[in-house]
Amino acid sequence: MTELYHWFDLIGVAVFAVSGTLLAYEKKMDGFGVVVLATVTAIGGGTVRDLILDVPVFWLHDQSYFFAILASVFVTTRLLNKQKPIPHYILQTADAFGLAFFAVMGAQKAQLAGMPDMTAVIMGVITGCFGGLIRDVLAREIPMLLKGELYAITCIAGGSVYTLCISFSLVTEVAMILGMLMTLLLRFAAIKWKITLHVFKYPD
Amino acid sequence: MTELYHWFDLIGVAVFAVSGTLLAYEKKMDGFGVVVLATVTAIGGGTVRDLILDVPVFWLHDQSYFFAILASVFVTTRLLNKQKPIPHYILQTADAFGLAFFAVMGAQKAQLAGMPDMTAVIMGVITGCFGGLIRDVLAREIPMLLKGELYAITCIAGGSVYTLCISFSLVTEVAMILGMLMTLLLRFAAIKWKITLHVFKYPD
Amino acid sequence: MTELYHWFDLIGVAVFAVSGTLLAYEKKMDGFGVVVLATVTAIGGGTVRDLILDVPVFWLHDQSYFFAILASVFVTTRLLNKQKPIPHYILQTADAFGLAFFAVMGAQKAQLAGMPDMTAVIMGVITGCFGGLIRDVLAREIPMLLKGELYAITCIAGGSVYTLCISFSLVTEVAMILGMLMTLLLRFAAIKWKITLHVFKYPD
Repeated sequence: MTELYHWFDLIGVAVFAVSGTLLAYEKKMDGFGVVVLATVTAIGGGTVRDLILDVPVFWLHDQSYFFAILASVFVTTRLLNKQKPIPHYILQTADAFGLAFFAVMGAQKAQLAGMPDMTAVIMGVITGCFGGLIRDVLAREIPMLLKGELYAITCIAGGSVYTLCISFSLVTEVAMILGMLMTLLLRFAAIKWKITLHVFKYPD
Repeated sequence: MTELYHWFDLIGVAVFAVSGTLLAYEKKMDGFGVVVLATVTAIGGGTVRDLILDVPVFWLHDQSYFFAILASVFVTTRLLNKQKPIPHYILQTADAFGLAFFAVMGAQKAQLAGMPDMTAVIMGVITGCFGGLIRDVLAREIPMLLKGELYAITCIAGGSVYTLCISFSLVTEVAMILGMLMTLLLRFAAIKWKITLHVFKYPD
Repeated sequence: MTELYHWFDLIGVAVFAVSGTLLAYEKKMDGFGVVVLATVTAIGGGTVRDLILDVPVFWLHDQSYFFAILASVFVTTRLLNKQKPIPHYILQTADAFGLAFFAVMGAQKAQLAGMPDMTAVIMGVITGCFGGLIRDVLAREIPMLLKGELYAITCIAGGSVYTLCISFSLVTEVAMILGMLMTLLLRFAAIKWKITLHVFKYPD
């Protein structure tokens, strides 16, 4: 079981590493900096979560994450070098999958650390969003997270579905899959139909 | 008494959330990203302080901070949508109040955690300045903190007044109010008379 | 002995403070913000390392670091104000020395905290690179770390040499000096001959 979670975690790390590599390519960064950007994107959110929860940072004694990142960067780079510029939506798709995995894994880890539901949902947001936030800051992009499009709110939705399912005593695996689907569907809908949430009305 | 501090803390969080919302409006960010920017501005400094002090992060088990932030964002947004563009000095004023509250609260929390006075003052600077620093980085502004105008130094002054008063055995509440006034007056003076501290002489 | 390490640490802190001051000058920042930028550059990497290792942050109870930073800023500022604009390679040289000291000190501290070798090397990278990374983000530069030139990889090389020497039971001091030399030579070679590592092939 824990085995299964570990694999989920590795997949989340790998897809975020892909998103970091893609942005590095887009911004014409090069060299080992690509590996650094991919790594920070992939493990940044979970690291901030573990620091705040005051639990041991997940990658300190487990080197498999770094192998997953290196493999991810290697494969992505090979594909990029064989092809024409990759359309921007591929980056958004990789980002969305990472978001979905991490929103739920983060909420779960917070619950296991004895946090109340609201904090668990926020930890899901941090795990899901902060890696990409750091990625965008380092690459000097306007963070996806801060644009009008649904983003952080998809993590809140996913984390809430997960914590709700758990409080209704559903099997953990089912709760996780439902939470992930929620985030993924909302985020894809936001990308496809450019769903934005308008808070401000600007004078013309 | 602790009750009173909690209210002070909530006010500091609320005014920084206002400053985050105002900057998001100015930079034409929109959607839930506004809430994220307001939240990071409001609790970023205190979170970094608690991580460094290795004490439990203050919002983990207390959801009132998030309600204060949401209320702050809601009210600010309503006001913004009703009016013409708000002048920049309102953002600076909200920022100054947050600065004053947090410089003293941060120094106090560090002292309670057994830190020496110099570290306490630095913790005041971190609590007061880092939320705004993260806000400016995310909004891709030159951080207020790094411009020539008096900024970090107002937190140092406020924190020093507070720690000095405590070491002269003044009542905590008086020490807090004097520290806050110090920061507030210095910062307002800096804004009003554009007081800058010049360190570099550039060749013409 | 511990005395010696403390001095090494102070030298690393001082040269990074120089690099922060130089960048602040280049970007025409001024006032106390210069001290903030120098401080964050100088102790940022070690602070992130200590947070992740969950050991007490190194400057909490030791104020000598701040005196080293202030002295560093003061001397650098005096020199800058007496002379013509300082060439960019001086900033890169100060940065390289900080990198070399911290890559080894970071790896060593991680080993003493019981971390495996790979984590120790990564802690060297964090200690060496993150101060400069934060400096560049705050000054809105493209982080040196993310450009094509050899940078993070020089810390990996230095940290690896150090951990290897230790595992071959070399005297700690010798291991440290060899690790530092490795980072320094690689980084200087990269600066002098503009050695870059190309990962991406862009279509013409």
